Amino acid sequence: MALVVQKYGGSSVQDADRIKKVAERIVRTRKEGHDVVVVVSAMGDTTDDLTDLARQISPAPPAREMDMLLTAGERISNALVAMAIHALGADARSFTGSQAGMLTTSKHGDARIVQVNPGRLRNALDEGSIVLVAGFQGMSEDSKDITTLGRGGSDTTAVALAAALEADVCEIYTDVDGVFSADPRIVPDAAHLDTITYEEMLEMAACGAKVLHLRAVEYARRYNVPLRVRCSYNEKPGTLVAGSIEEIPLENPIITGVAHDRSEGKITITGVPDTPGMAARIFRTVADAEINIDMVLQNVSHSGDQHTDITFSLPRTDGPTAVAALERVKSEIGFAEVIYDPEVGKVSLVGAGMRNHPGVTATFCEALSDAGINIETMNTSEIRISVICRVDQLDDAVRALHEAFELGGDEQAVVHAGTGR
Amino acid sequence: MALVVQKYGGSSVQDADRIKKVAERIVRTRKEGHDVVVVVSAMGDTTDDLTDLARQISPAPPAREMDMLLTAGERISNALVAMAIHALGADARSFTGSQAGMLTTSKHGDARIVQVNPGRLRNALDEGSIVLVAGFQGMSEDSKDITTLGRGGSDTTAVALAAALEADVCEIYTDVDGVFSADPRIVPDAAHLDTITYEEMLEMAACGAKVLHLRAVEYARRYNVPLRVRCSYNEKPGTLVAGSIEEIPLENPIITGVAHDRSEGKITITGVPDTPGMAARIFRTVADAEINIDMVLQNVSHSGDQHTDITFSLPRTDGPTAVAALERVKSEIGFAEVIYDPEVGKVSLVGAGMRNHPGVTATFCEALSDAGINIETMNTSEIRISVICRVDQLDDAVRALHEAFELGGDEQAVVHAGTGR
Repeated sequence: MALVVQKYGGSSVQDADRIKKVAERIVRTRKEGHDVVVVVSAMGDTTDDLTDLARQISPAPPAREMDMLLTAGERISNALVAMAIHALGADARSFTGSQAGMLTTSKHGDARIVQVNPGRLRNALDEGSIVLVAGFQGMSEDSKDITTLGRGGSDTTAVALAAALEADVCEIYTDVDGVFSADPRIVPDAAHLDTITYEEMLEMAACGAKVLHLRAVEYARRYNVPLRVRCSYNEKPGTLVAGSIEEIPLENPIITGVAHDRSEGKITITGVPDTPGMAARIFRTVADAEINIDMVLQNVSHSGDQHTDITFSLPRTDGPTAVAALERVKSEIGFAEVIYDPEVGKVSLVGAGMRNHPGVTATFCEALSDAGINIETMNTSEIRISVICRVDQLDDAVRALHEAFELGGDEQAVVHAGTGR
Repeated sequence: MALVVQKYGGSSVQDADRIKKVAERIVRTRKEGHDVVVVVSAMGDTTDDLTDLARQISPAPPAREMDMLLTAGERISNALVAMAIHALGADARSFTGSQAGMLTTSKHGDARIVQVNPGRLRNALDEGSIVLVAGFQGMSEDSKDITTLGRGGSDTTAVALAAALEADVCEIYTDVDGVFSADPRIVPDAAHLDTITYEEMLEMAACGAKVLHLRAVEYARRYNVPLRVRCSYNEKPGTLVAGSIEEIPLENPIITGVAHDRSEGKITITGVPDTPGMAARIFRTVADAEINIDMVLQNVSHSGDQHTDITFSLPRTDGPTAVAALERVKSEIGFAEVIYDPEVGKVSLVGAGMRNHPGVTATFCEALSDAGINIETMNTSEIRISVICRVDQLDDAVRALHEAFELGGDEQAVVHAGTGR
């Protein structure tokens, strides 16, 4: 008998019929003899609908109250799934984040899990019950207020529970069959991956692969929780995220996949005085506006000139805020201009094997060049190469890299509709 | 500076515009220098919508999960009102029932308040914040599960908070201007009551007056909380519910008002053996089916006959269940027949003065007789007379009694649309 944590996204529970289907799968897992803990996101568009309602009432609702509001969505969906399980003759109990002992920091809207005290869940499991936990939410350790975990919060809830309960596996149910070597909507012969290491999955998620959220993968890696990404609509085994790149055999493929991200913008600051501390002042300005920057490129100073250019990418939604913050310090820092470009995309190649194989970067650049794609900014890690290009060339870039590294599979991937939180 | 508890029903917060109006009233009260604690019901039809969703999933959803589901409605409305208050520049914090220290029994769907520990609310008030509490809900003292308080739960929440915080007044906002001498939709010149005692209000509420829920009035009387019933849509002072019938001056009017109830049914059991214990066995049968009976009439045994008839009224929704339970014990108890009559109505006259004034019953019966209304069953308390009649004669009965006791006011009452929980 194993302990299995399952997480279902909002599209998997968007109406009564889907909720019943999810309940059937949960009860089946229980009947196979496993203890089951389930984390469910809010139904379909609930979170968006509640957010709209809040905006009708206040242009800037207080974050504490937004958390009180939004967490109602997961309460509803979890209670309904519990009812559906009961209707199938099994015992189920739903718990809120605070009842589940999910203690967090007090940063409303983007809290971090500090500690998980799953005593009540353990008791319910010992009594033979299936346990449901409202995802995305917790309780501030300090203020005892209700908090939310931000984007991907339900995935993080599931992984944190799996870690605290020492579960055998944490299954993340979604609308795709697992992790692929590229987005099957762009690359029809994208190969299904049976396994992927935590590090590679982290790079993929950080570079735009939407199947898993970065924080959930980070959490899984830290606590060594095996993650299995599966589809809600079939019985395929999905993709196992586990293990370290240090452990994988050398004969494994060099490259794992191609990720892409359409959600970034690019800011270039020209004529920055080439004196110590200038870059720091620029990035401090952006950080003070609570914006995370992604790739950074500082060009070398032109000979004879005492100025340089700094380029960085950032979430496109933060673009206007960053520009406004930088304009305010323009004269103080003494740079020439802030240029904002929202028309960029990022394509990344990820693979644990590239550490030991020279020539990957060369092949990468040749493939893009052959496809007529100009590289605007490049950035690498030990197991990843990312570049910024024009957003309208992004799909071509993904296909060119996927082909150049021969990542294609034997069959076409099935694409299902809808996504969860 | 006073401490004011305000309760708003579901129709007062049914959309963003109404929520803003409610917030304005709350902020106005705060600006007058009072500490304000607010209890809000779920928005408009939220509770019905969630109940429908549950029925789609399970014909008999577990009560624990229904409570988890339904309490989300008050979370949503309270958070939204808090946002609307913030938008007006005042500070507000919303709390769930358990955060507000509302400890209850563990009977899901119909829990009783055991204790209120308002420490967090007191702290928030001391910090100058307006406090919002999700109505209708609490936490089981034993199991720590979320519970609901049943019908009128938000009124009860407000009164219990007022008692625990030793509030100066508990204002119940509704869609009428207060308590009237009869339902203004039936009696256009029904008189507005400026004050009414707890005992009279209890009798009115028990006899069908919908403006306040019985449990809330009982709670208010026990803890001596002054209740003020006011209209959400105007500034009129409403009706004050306070004081005991022992304290009211003798020159006060004898009769307070006429209440009516259209929600009852009547069961007659014929040919019951006239031996000790038979009535007890019948009422135990009904009680075991968890049905509350209202008025009871046992006719005297006919001379020479060893059998009697027993008649009682009960909520019409419980009628079929009661009949089925009684049919099952028919041969065991040995009665002749169970006759169920759903076409009945109950009209009641309430007044603290009737204790000291003989002749009220006679006038009562004459008035109904003159209006051609047959009395089927009669029942009295110290300050109330109730009778069962045909439901299609109920409005005539209300008008006849209202006129006979000269209860009419000088102006016509305004009837607003909608009701809250």
